[in-house]
Amino acid sequence: MFRITHKDKRARSAILSTKSGSIQTPFFMPVATKGSVKYISSDDLKSMKNTAVISNAFVLYLRPGDSFMKKVGGIKKFMHYHGINATDSGGFQMYKDTFLIKTTHDGVHFKSPFDGTKHFVTPEKDMEVQMNIGSDIAMCLDSMPLVEHSKKRISEAVEQTTEWAKRCKIHHDKLNSDKSGKLKPSNRRQLLFGISQGGTYPDLRKKSCQQLSKIDFDGFSAGGLALGEPKQKLLQMLRIHKGIMPEDKPCYLMGLGSPIELLEAIELGADMFDSRFPTQNARRGTIFTSQGKLRLMRKEYEYDQMPLDPNCDCMVCKRYTRAFIRYQLSQQEGTGYRLATYHQLYYLTRLMEQSREAIKKKQFTRFKNKIIKAYEKADAENEKKLKDNNLKGKKKRKSISLGNKRSKK
Amino acid sequence: MFRITHKDKRARSAILSTKSGSIQTPFFMPVATKGSVKYISSDDLKSMKNTAVISNAFVLYLRPGDSFMKKVGGIKKFMHYHGINATDSGGFQMYKDTFLIKTTHDGVHFKSPFDGTKHFVTPEKDMEVQMNIGSDIAMCLDSMPLVEHSKKRISEAVEQTTEWAKRCKIHHDKLNSDKSGKLKPSNRRQLLFGISQGGTYPDLRKKSCQQLSKIDFDGFSAGGLALGEPKQKLLQMLRIHKGIMPEDKPCYLMGLGSPIELLEAIELGADMFDSRFPTQNARRGTIFTSQGKLRLMRKEYEYDQMPLDPNCDCMVCKRYTRAFIRYQLSQQEGTGYRLATYHQLYYLTRLMEQSREAIKKKQFTRFKNKIIKAYEKADAENEKKLKDNNLKGKKKRKSISLGNKRSKK
Repeated sequence: MFRITHKDKRARSAILSTKSGSIQTPFFMPVATKGSVKYISSDDLKSMKNTAVISNAFVLYLRPGDSFMKKVGGIKKFMHYHGINATDSGGFQMYKDTFLIKTTHDGVHFKSPFDGTKHFVTPEKDMEVQMNIGSDIAMCLDSMPLVEHSKKRISEAVEQTTEWAKRCKIHHDKLNSDKSGKLKPSNRRQLLFGISQGGTYPDLRKKSCQQLSKIDFDGFSAGGLALGEPKQKLLQMLRIHKGIMPEDKPCYLMGLGSPIELLEAIELGADMFDSRFPTQNARRGTIFTSQGKLRLMRKEYEYDQMPLDPNCDCMVCKRYTRAFIRYQLSQQEGTGYRLATYHQLYYLTRLMEQSREAIKKKQFTRFKNKIIKAYEKADAENEKKLKDNNLKGKKKRKSISLGNKRSKK
Repeated sequence: MFRITHKDKRARSAILSTKSGSIQTPFFMPVATKGSVKYISSDDLKSMKNTAVISNAFVLYLRPGDSFMKKVGGIKKFMHYHGINATDSGGFQMYKDTFLIKTTHDGVHFKSPFDGTKHFVTPEKDMEVQMNIGSDIAMCLDSMPLVEHSKKRISEAVEQTTEWAKRCKIHHDKLNSDKSGKLKPSNRRQLLFGISQGGTYPDLRKKSCQQLSKIDFDGFSAGGLALGEPKQKLLQMLRIHKGIMPEDKPCYLMGLGSPIELLEAIELGADMFDSRFPTQNARRGTIFTSQGKLRLMRKEYEYDQMPLDPNCDCMVCKRYTRAFIRYQLSQQEGTGYRLATYHQLYYLTRLMEQSREAIKKKQFTRFKNKIIKAYEKADAENEKKLKDNNLKGKKKRKSISLGNKRSKK
């Protein structure tokens, strides 16, 4: 069940009910591919009031195996996780040459990157895998073409995705029906989302959405995006997706994780997000803050006694300095990864909370603009510093090459 | 100040006062080489009631630099750490070919493994580095020979260590004196420990101890041990060290971290310990428990729904299964490292607490024997399982090579 509680133009806040409880939208899901968010325990997630994570059915199917997951009581018990667990079908992984052997009408042939064993997954099998894993929200098996593929290939993938979506829905309904053959109520079974494809071609995206919208999914994801295409293209595809998919179903924009893009997507009515970039960025020293992106690894922060974000009240910002976290990251220390990741996810959790609040107050656009302004300001300052440093560097090199020692004074 | 509060034969419990507060002995120090215990935050350490860690002056001198540490207010502020911080001088690192260039009478020439730069550290310089770092307990610069070195080389190292210890003490006193030139009281300055050497040669160890015992150090470490020599040799050296060093000074056996050896050393009167092995073992799946060593990576624990230690009340054992941690470790996931490390250090912290309690009750030997029995029982069971598996494996291979398919039934 998906109940919209507040609207502010196209942006909305809603309550999504699952078998593990209800969750307010919009929300961001950190990636727990293998049942853990890297360097973060489920207690950490609880302490930052995180409400959902997304795992990867395909990776878990290979190791430790979906029958393993069933045996140990499902992923939430396995992870000791309090929130909502979604699983991606693995369509995204097929995108990688390390996995994919070939896609046929029946399903996907792929090899395990762990041990080279060959596997064949049909839409039906994928539904069974996700049921065994026991996630609260499952994704259809989609066929995701490479961005550089021809329009023809992308068009074929759209058709394939629709075909598989139908098969997923039929099989998933079977798996989620009671003895009399009746589909269980949505808060007592796994939810199933369809995924639109079509790359960044408006006509193909439209076609994909039109075909999928006819199937009674619990929600609709926009897939194959946030892969490096221009932001305007991404938002254009989201507009098409939103324009066709039923308004009373959740809209999950897959792969989005940068604060500004999240806000722009929320403004267009997207409800759910996931991305591995925020945590990966954190480990590399790009930190989201109330004052925009902090490039922590820059020399200027070497001795900095400030917290990552002076306006953040997370356990990391309350206790540790930029200098400490910068040093730990530079030394590839796990503790540094943990602290930077914790802050990053705390920040995004608060950003989603504030977005919901702003929607309730019908002030979302103002809120979004305030955040964007901070990020743009920080980016401009960063760029200016870079330029100045480059100029300094050039001057220095020039004076050295001229044998002029003034620069050393 | 070191005040022995309880004795049980040779074992003792005492209170060691430092500029950061008092601490009860015996205690174990996790290794925080670069200012963080791998995968563990200072909050984690606090929550497990850890009381001390040891960092490495030599590594911190190279990066981020001791002047950096001074500038940011010293290591405890840097780490946001509540307990006692000790620093090892770096003598141990000189033991490694990656660092050492040569040792002269004056000091140590070495190269940085980070950038290849060459450095020269004298005993005086080492004292200054540790003062800048701001640790509560500093170690003398010692000359640590390789175990395989000739007795002659080890004998020379003993002399060198004594010579340097004298220079360390003189310079450290200077750095820790008030304006009138008087040494500050021990709870208002950094403490300095001497380190005995001599390998496993009783006569050399004796000589080293005799020479060092004449210097008024705040404590005496036994160095160059726990490097793979037979346990009986190690304990013999500890007996010699204890027999010569003043009874009213703390005895720090460097490098020890296995539960049984810790208890055996405590029984002989050792007060302080450190080792990187417990945390390293944890990351590799060798877990200390009330039922002995758990070899978590064995196949038999794949589905195990038990906590790491059914008798442990740490946050890891309260929440996570062996199956979960085993899978996370097998996937090299940071969360797995964190959880396994947390339990391991919690276990050792409790073991030290229980040891102090047992000494107070004059029941230490009984306590020690109970723990040893559990470890021996687990080891015997593990060995039996290994043998059985080997036998099964042999039988299986035999039947396969004979083309006998019975084993497949």
